[in-house]
Amino acid sequence: QGCEDDIAPTGTKSGVPTTSSITFFGYIQGQYSSEFLQPETTSSFHFKRARFGVRGRINRSFSYYASLEASDFVSSDGNPYLLDAFITWDKHEWAKISMGSFKQPFSRDVATACHSLTTIDRSIVADQLVAPQRDYGLMLLGGSSKTKFRYSLALMNGTGLGTKDTNKKKDVIGRATYQLLNFLNVGASFRYGYPTNEDDDRTSYGFDALISYKKLSVQGEYIYDEGAYNLGADGGCGATPVILGDKRQGAYVMAAYKVSDKLQPVLKYEYFDADTDLKVSPISGYQEMFTVGVNYFFHKKVRLQVNYQIKEVDNNSDHDALLAQVQVRF
Amino acid sequence: QGCEDDIAPTGTKSGVPTTSSITFFGYIQGQYSSEFLQPETTSSFHFKRARFGVRGRINRSFSYYASLEASDFVSSDGNPYLLDAFITWDKHEWAKISMGSFKQPFSRDVATACHSLTTIDRSIVADQLVAPQRDYGLMLLGGSSKTKFRYSLALMNGTGLGTKDTNKKKDVIGRATYQLLNFLNVGASFRYGYPTNEDDDRTSYGFDALISYKKLSVQGEYIYDEGAYNLGADGGCGATPVILGDKRQGAYVMAAYKVSDKLQPVLKYEYFDADTDLKVSPISGYQEMFTVGVNYFFHKKVRLQVNYQIKEVDNNSDHDALLAQVQVRF
Amino acid sequence: QGCEDDIAPTGTKSGVPTTSSITFFGYIQGQYSSEFLQPETTSSFHFKRARFGVRGRINRSFSYYASLEASDFVSSDGNPYLLDAFITWDKHEWAKISMGSFKQPFSRDVATACHSLTTIDRSIVADQLVAPQRDYGLMLLGGSSKTKFRYSLALMNGTGLGTKDTNKKKDVIGRATYQLLNFLNVGASFRYGYPTNEDDDRTSYGFDALISYKKLSVQGEYIYDEGAYNLGADGGCGATPVILGDKRQGAYVMAAYKVSDKLQPVLKYEYFDADTDLKVSPISGYQEMFTVGVNYFFHKKVRLQVNYQIKEVDNNSDHDALLAQVQVRF
Repeated sequence: QGCEDDIAPTGTKSGVPTTSSITFFGYIQGQYSSEFLQPETTSSFHFKRARFGVRGRINRSFSYYASLEASDFVSSDGNPYLLDAFITWDKHEWAKISMGSFKQPFSRDVATACHSLTTIDRSIVADQLVAPQRDYGLMLLGGSSKTKFRYSLALMNGTGLGTKDTNKKKDVIGRATYQLLNFLNVGASFRYGYPTNEDDDRTSYGFDALISYKKLSVQGEYIYDEGAYNLGADGGCGATPVILGDKRQGAYVMAAYKVSDKLQPVLKYEYFDADTDLKVSPISGYQEMFTVGVNYFFHKKVRLQVNYQIKEVDNNSDHDALLAQVQVRF
Repeated sequence: QGCEDDIAPTGTKSGVPTTSSITFFGYIQGQYSSEFLQPETTSSFHFKRARFGVRGRINRSFSYYASLEASDFVSSDGNPYLLDAFITWDKHEWAKISMGSFKQPFSRDVATACHSLTTIDRSIVADQLVAPQRDYGLMLLGGSSKTKFRYSLALMNGTGLGTKDTNKKKDVIGRATYQLLNFLNVGASFRYGYPTNEDDDRTSYGFDALISYKKLSVQGEYIYDEGAYNLGADGGCGATPVILGDKRQGAYVMAAYKVSDKLQPVLKYEYFDADTDLKVSPISGYQEMFTVGVNYFFHKKVRLQVNYQIKEVDNNSDHDALLAQVQVRF
Repeated sequence: QGCEDDIAPTGTKSGVPTTSSITFFGYIQGQYSSEFLQPETTSSFHFKRARFGVRGRINRSFSYYASLEASDFVSSDGNPYLLDAFITWDKHEWAKISMGSFKQPFSRDVATACHSLTTIDRSIVADQLVAPQRDYGLMLLGGSSKTKFRYSLALMNGTGLGTKDTNKKKDVIGRATYQLLNFLNVGASFRYGYPTNEDDDRTSYGFDALISYKKLSVQGEYIYDEGAYNLGADGGCGATPVILGDKRQGAYVMAAYKVSDKLQPVLKYEYFDADTDLKVSPISGYQEMFTVGVNYFFHKKVRLQVNYQIKEVDNNSDHDALLAQVQVRF
């Protein structure tokens, strides 16, 4: 967990915890967005994310991680806030425990670090249904990028950052991945909780897979979600939450190819159905998006992303957008 | 002053200023709180404090200190803010001068660094009466942890952080401590000021003592306060200010015993009378609290605190709470 | 650009880019202000600015810069925010490109780093007319402090930080300086944009000069501005925007003399006409200010500034102020 790196807070790349250390990190994503809406096209320079953090190790058993989101366009009030911040007891690789704030361990797309997304935006289904995307709680986790199997199991408020839980019941969220074949990693996620009160529950699950074959990577994921939800709980980084029906679902499939070390074109198709019971036009809550993009790595820490998004929302196709982002990591 | 360490900003532990330096520091306090209220018990994961700072020395005469509070649950609007930030001219140990924002030099409880409190919460009387707990101003101070005598004398706005002073008159706050016996340190504090306008004044004083005998420490403090006050001025870290009468007072006594290097049980009794003239039930403004706790140090920088608080507010005892906090410092 | 140092983000002082690096920096400006208003004098301790940042170099072609303003008295809501943050492609000294948030390249006064101003406040004309003083965009720039000629040309939203652009048209802002004689540097600035909508434009230009002769420096600048403007766009650090007429202008001239390495007295005269078409008393929108000040450098990183401001606003002279600021940089 943590947006910077999946494993650093809980040990070195080899999985063996080391002794005392402190590291500063951060990245800024300057962006130019142009939305081709009707009747008017808008365009703006802005930031997607601007993050600053510190992580390190106290001793062989404890590590920590803390980061601040400083972009004016992520939190609902535009102010900076404490994003991921947790202490991890990582003495045993298969039973690490984290406490603090972190992403819900749900979805491969959400688990991908925010500076390593293949397209500029996360999938709509992940932004809309894995909400709150971050929360306070406790997490049990095991495995690393070196192991075939990894899992995370979290007990969280269910109300998201910036607020205390409004009820006594907590949410349970879990995720596991397995390297089934050399080129195939599969995953499954679930969540059961009480987002609004102690009576109305919510059940979610998802399946995903990642094929990495030579220079090609293909990633797909399906998420289903039903029951109560909290519209106020922020979803993905700055995504505007939509109104959901009782049952909702979505999926995406994305293919990227590393033409060279620097150049990586990407294609993504996705759909999101905000209310599976609603099939009538013009308001069906259904949207589709096709993204054509290219990533150019000037340096492993300097990336240019250009995405053209072809969107259709409620059978209305006047929502295309052109996004260009320059990211620098330090 | 400063929450990180009482003396580092003004010199080394030996009291001798050194040359140029810069240090990053911080700590996060992940917490789980359960309040046994009637008719409903609530519980939540959250943060108590999450602080990030920098301190250092420019030359033999000037040092600096700056820190940011990033917890969502401290400032009244939940946003991060500049906490303690000051420059200190510390050429002469007995006449150092600080300018900026810092804690009011009042009360032993308030003077204790926020990551070194023996119980999770400060005493109610310190949170409610030493408010604003932090303010902008000038401070003259002398002595260090190596000297028998220490003093602080501050001229401050009296209106707290985040706002300019609303009147021309400033507050005077002072505190002195003396190591009377090897095992006994005594202290006294006073404050005289104009919290709201130029006509209505406020007078406060307090006495305190700390007995450190082998593995036992016993600390006690009494605070009396009368006159005008500013309800909006934030008190202790996230404490909700209560309405005060013309005269108010409170005290606590706390005993802790270091069973081992790692384990330290603690008991604390305290009371707070928000209006000493009001004696009628059911609203007397009077509250008592008994805290049973234990501190466990996994490492000197990783601490678990568990506190059970038995509270009685206005003769109503349905206010118990169970708090568990994990703190990591870096 | 960037408030810390004009050239560091885009190379070393020699203009030759170096390899990977990271530097933390910041400064705090503790201030005491007393305003001699009628009928009442007010006074307060507060902060002017409190900034924390990081800058560095990724490789020979890319550098970055990011800083946070944490003073409670700069942003309109008093919260911290991301100030300057940009990535710069600086492979070629005469065609560097920055993307992110930075100051508009307009006015010598605005171009001066916020910790290196000769008087505590910037000139009124720069604070009122170079607004938004910071914005999101792209900038092409060339030259350095080692070259006779320097230029900056920016394409920016025109709406300032914290908000996306409300229209499709962008603002163009540019500035060039030239070292005409050994002791004389001259500059010119222009801006053309659409601050509010796509129909109403704004045109601004300015001329400035800096004479540096032995221990004396004399700086002067004239700014003219006409057309639409956005009252909400924050001007200088915490300056309160005034209502402007269709045409407005102002100028200042400032002389400072380094009596010794530590002591530098300064005199500044300035005027600002918020509406050149309005000449009637009592509301003419015209103000004049004369500043008498002294800078004392305890250390190159510790500075005391004392300014007495004699102001006349709309022919009313009851606006004098005494400001004292202590700044520490790290």
